[in-house]
Amino acid sequence: MSLVTIGSVAFDALETPFGKTDKIVGGAATYITLAASYFTKENHIVGIVGGDFPQEMIETLRHHGVNTDGLQVDPSGKTFFWSGRYHSDMNERDTLDTQLGVFENWSPVLPESTQGADFLMLGNMVPAMQYETLRRFAKRPKFVMLDTMNLWMDIAKEDLLSVLKDIDCLTINDSEARQLSGEYSIRKAAKKILTMGPKTLIIKKGEHGALLFQGERIFFCPALPLEEVFDPTGAGDTFAGGFIGYLAKTGDISFENMKRAIIYGSAMASFCVEKFGTERLLNLSQDEIQERVLAFVQLASFEIVD
Amino acid sequence: MSLVTIGSVAFDALETPFGKTDKIVGGAATYITLAASYFTKENHIVGIVGGDFPQEMIETLRHHGVNTDGLQVDPSGKTFFWSGRYHSDMNERDTLDTQLGVFENWSPVLPESTQGADFLMLGNMVPAMQYETLRRFAKRPKFVMLDTMNLWMDIAKEDLLSVLKDIDCLTINDSEARQLSGEYSIRKAAKKILTMGPKTLIIKKGEHGALLFQGERIFFCPALPLEEVFDPTGAGDTFAGGFIGYLAKTGDISFENMKRAIIYGSAMASFCVEKFGTERLLNLSQDEIQERVLAFVQLASFEIVD
Repeated sequence: MSLVTIGSVAFDALETPFGKTDKIVGGAATYITLAASYFTKENHIVGIVGGDFPQEMIETLRHHGVNTDGLQVDPSGKTFFWSGRYHSDMNERDTLDTQLGVFENWSPVLPESTQGADFLMLGNMVPAMQYETLRRFAKRPKFVMLDTMNLWMDIAKEDLLSVLKDIDCLTINDSEARQLSGEYSIRKAAKKILTMGPKTLIIKKGEHGALLFQGERIFFCPALPLEEVFDPTGAGDTFAGGFIGYLAKTGDISFENMKRAIIYGSAMASFCVEKFGTERLLNLSQDEIQERVLAFVQLASFEIVD
Repeated sequence: MSLVTIGSVAFDALETPFGKTDKIVGGAATYITLAASYFTKENHIVGIVGGDFPQEMIETLRHHGVNTDGLQVDPSGKTFFWSGRYHSDMNERDTLDTQLGVFENWSPVLPESTQGADFLMLGNMVPAMQYETLRRFAKRPKFVMLDTMNLWMDIAKEDLLSVLKDIDCLTINDSEARQLSGEYSIRKAAKKILTMGPKTLIIKKGEHGALLFQGERIFFCPALPLEEVFDPTGAGDTFAGGFIGYLAKTGDISFENMKRAIIYGSAMASFCVEKFGTERLLNLSQDEIQERVLAFVQLASFEIVD
């Protein structure tokens, strides 16, 4: 089934304990669509870049089967730029610079080819714009997933609460879940957030895995213990892209299938962090993905015999 | 099969965000043997208490089938006392007071009934004493597990490294694993620690679960997301007690069975934190334990269909 992803397409400059990069291509929508491309070929990106964005990367997306009709190029402006530094504990990072560029006053335009989408991924951005974009679909997609961040809880909480009412699935990290709910216990936080609109909630815990909540049901997906997390940038978006891409591929939004989807999402994220930026996501084989998923099966499976 | 546990029997005074206690009975060996008592009836405790220790608690241990021949009472001294305070993040705690009392110069005495033990749990204490105690077994138990802490890595690293050479399984938390190995990556830390002696390593991550390492094999055991962690004191010891108690019950130290044992250990720990001190461990039924284990199965199980 078809998937539309709306979000940032950006340049990142990164510093990690393992090295640093000049400007490389990043952005939520980039990671999401690249990860999803391994699962669905009806894969649309909606975003905006400036005249400085490499045409080559647009070709790369197309080469991965991503439909780029919705990727506007504004030659008069600059692409969204973010620069950050990670330390040993890669769950924390410092933002060194943010230049919104053409992303600042962007209002997403949905090309005809994106109408009728079954799955919609609203990448992290101003909640009012996520709300407005969702309204622009003549027919609401059957499954709407949203990512957000602590910044919007600080400065645009009302707008965020409005858009939450209209979505199916929210994905945030553990500290954001605590902030949004005002509850320290993750279990209580989830219970409260599930009353805010989304029927499904994914709480990402970085190297500690992820939790999937729906009604009274909980599924815990581990993270693969890696020898080295080289660069965690985009891991959360890659996770979301693998998750919703797998749902779009299978067209099945049952809880059982979401459990599988979260394993695929985690597998994709485990690749993402092995190299800088999107590099590792550009040339994966289906065999590599299946092998990684098998590693999750081995990591998490046990049998009670009594 | 028989289990012998050597370690502290103590008084604790605790403060958590949910309340505070006067002196209540705690100590590593208390939690370990209580948890193990739900799995094995050949369950020996070796420890020391002062004249201030309530006879009633010794009766309670006996009532749980714990053999207390090795629990020395020194009427001239005081029982080991620890006082601590927890905050919202229960993975961190402040020590307010420590009075070693009779534990300070204790040299464990092994009664005849503990010789020939199949399983030995060396609770957290001075590494030299763990080493010395292990030497006092005429026949080395077939499975020796050891718990330790950051303090000994700071002040008695050489002694710790000596005893590690002679044990089968080490259990520590993630920050201790990083400190002991000098590696930030948990995967690399585990690899290095497995060259120090133990063939099996358990890294506890509190609310983020636990990892079991053996050779190239890894198993991830989630922690049950609880609405409230009332008091985490003793959770690690309860986990260890459930783990080694299950191994002693089944007599099976295969990796597959250790996976089950770690689930049972986690289930026991999830009870422990629901009330202050040992309270929740005093009156569990086998049905409650099985129900809790089933919650872990539901939490962690998924099926890949491709």
